[in-house]
Amino acid sequence: MKRLACVVSYDGTNFSGYQVQPNKRTVQLELEKALKKVHKGQKTHVVASGRTDAGVHARGQVIHFDSPYHIPEAQWPKALNACLPDDIRITRAKYVSTDFHARYHTSGKEYRYRVLKSEQVDVFRRNLVTHIPYSLDVEEMRVAAQLIVGTHDFSAFCAANTNVVDKVRTLYAIEIEEYGDELHFILRGNGFLYNMVRIIVGTLLEVGNKKRSVNSVRMALEKCEREYAGKTAPGHGLYLWAVQYDEQ
Amino acid sequence: MKRLACVVSYDGTNFSGYQVQPNKRTVQLELEKALKKVHKGQKTHVVASGRTDAGVHARGQVIHFDSPYHIPEAQWPKALNACLPDDIRITRAKYVSTDFHARYHTSGKEYRYRVLKSEQVDVFRRNLVTHIPYSLDVEEMRVAAQLIVGTHDFSAFCAANTNVVDKVRTLYAIEIEEYGDELHFILRGNGFLYNMVRIIVGTLLEVGNKKRSVNSVRMALEKCEREYAGKTAPGHGLYLWAVQYDEQ
Repeated sequence: MKRLACVVSYDGTNFSGYQVQPNKRTVQLELEKALKKVHKGQKTHVVASGRTDAGVHARGQVIHFDSPYHIPEAQWPKALNACLPDDIRITRAKYVSTDFHARYHTSGKEYRYRVLKSEQVDVFRRNLVTHIPYSLDVEEMRVAAQLIVGTHDFSAFCAANTNVVDKVRTLYAIEIEEYGDELHFILRGNGFLYNMVRIIVGTLLEVGNKKRSVNSVRMALEKCEREYAGKTAPGHGLYLWAVQYDEQ
Repeated sequence: MKRLACVVSYDGTNFSGYQVQPNKRTVQLELEKALKKVHKGQKTHVVASGRTDAGVHARGQVIHFDSPYHIPEAQWPKALNACLPDDIRITRAKYVSTDFHARYHTSGKEYRYRVLKSEQVDVFRRNLVTHIPYSLDVEEMRVAAQLIVGTHDFSAFCAANTNVVDKVRTLYAIEIEEYGDELHFILRGNGFLYNMVRIIVGTLLEVGNKKRSVNSVRMALEKCEREYAGKTAPGHGLYLWAVQYDEQ
């Protein structure tokens, strides 16, 4: 058996998230169905760098799986894409050592959150961006973002129903960039808690909209309770953009 | 009764085109359903500037309909959008004289065709652009495009099964513009035959790909037979971008 790592992009719109759930269309289900076809009926388990929620997209999700086949690396995306629905694409494949693990060996992740700043929704991006019809103070959001960067207990920025104990994570950077009529929130860190990016972005949007002060963000980091942070921003603006591994 | 003209944008992906057809989801059907809701069960007929095919999008389709209601212009988009599915949006509404006709009074139309030039498809634009993985000679396509601009019998650039008799139309301009990794074909004319934009773009792409010469385009215009032009480009790259009226 050889182990393969693949970079996967998917449009999360029509998926109930990444992970297999009974009677739901999920990304993992479709990946494993495609691998079963490629392997002539033999079941193949897929491990991803992490889950994504319903509606959340991925540009650079990373998965691994084992295969008895010795297909050249460049042929793997073609073989798999031929068996996958058109809202999932394998963009790259690479043979890795059999102790590589897509989840355990991540050294960092990058998420992006796309906001459309316009009076009206754009029908062509309705599932790809979060539409904000009100004005946003980008400089104020950047000031608040710099408070969040660093090593903190991110309990206030984590869905309350999670069962992770250690909520200390390191955010390397939060950049807020304008791209035409969009604002992109770019977050890089060593690990992210459940809903962490969406709660950070939701909180920064409240700062941008003057619904909360920069100081209230400092308070949320100190208090470590979910109620001190802002609302969870909608899933459909979020992209798992890239996953880093020390091995690569 | 007052007559309203509206600008409509729609993502054509999940529609069997604009026009009502039995047992099909069409844009006209959804518009008329929304108007029926707004008018408390009263049926309202919608007239558009023209049809679009399955998968074809619109940024600036224009429709008209009559209503007994005297809602302020700015309220009409809100009232209709609340009743419409999220792949159709009314972006503007305007009261017009009762002899205004969305189809008969058009003085020109603009179509755009989006091509993604990249090795791999982009999962997020799979229904919004036509993916071209091979290289294109843009300058050669521009030379060929200038032959097509003007007043011609466009029989070679019209679906063979059409029953329109007069196939003379005037194309005011064809611009080919690069936008990042996309190439946009912008066509403006006084009227377009069935599949005309898609056949022109399909022909130009063959020129760009060196599958046909610029001279073969001149020949197609002279011969006036469908077989002399190129393949019909796919519908999902096409946008009805804007419709002009002398009255406005």
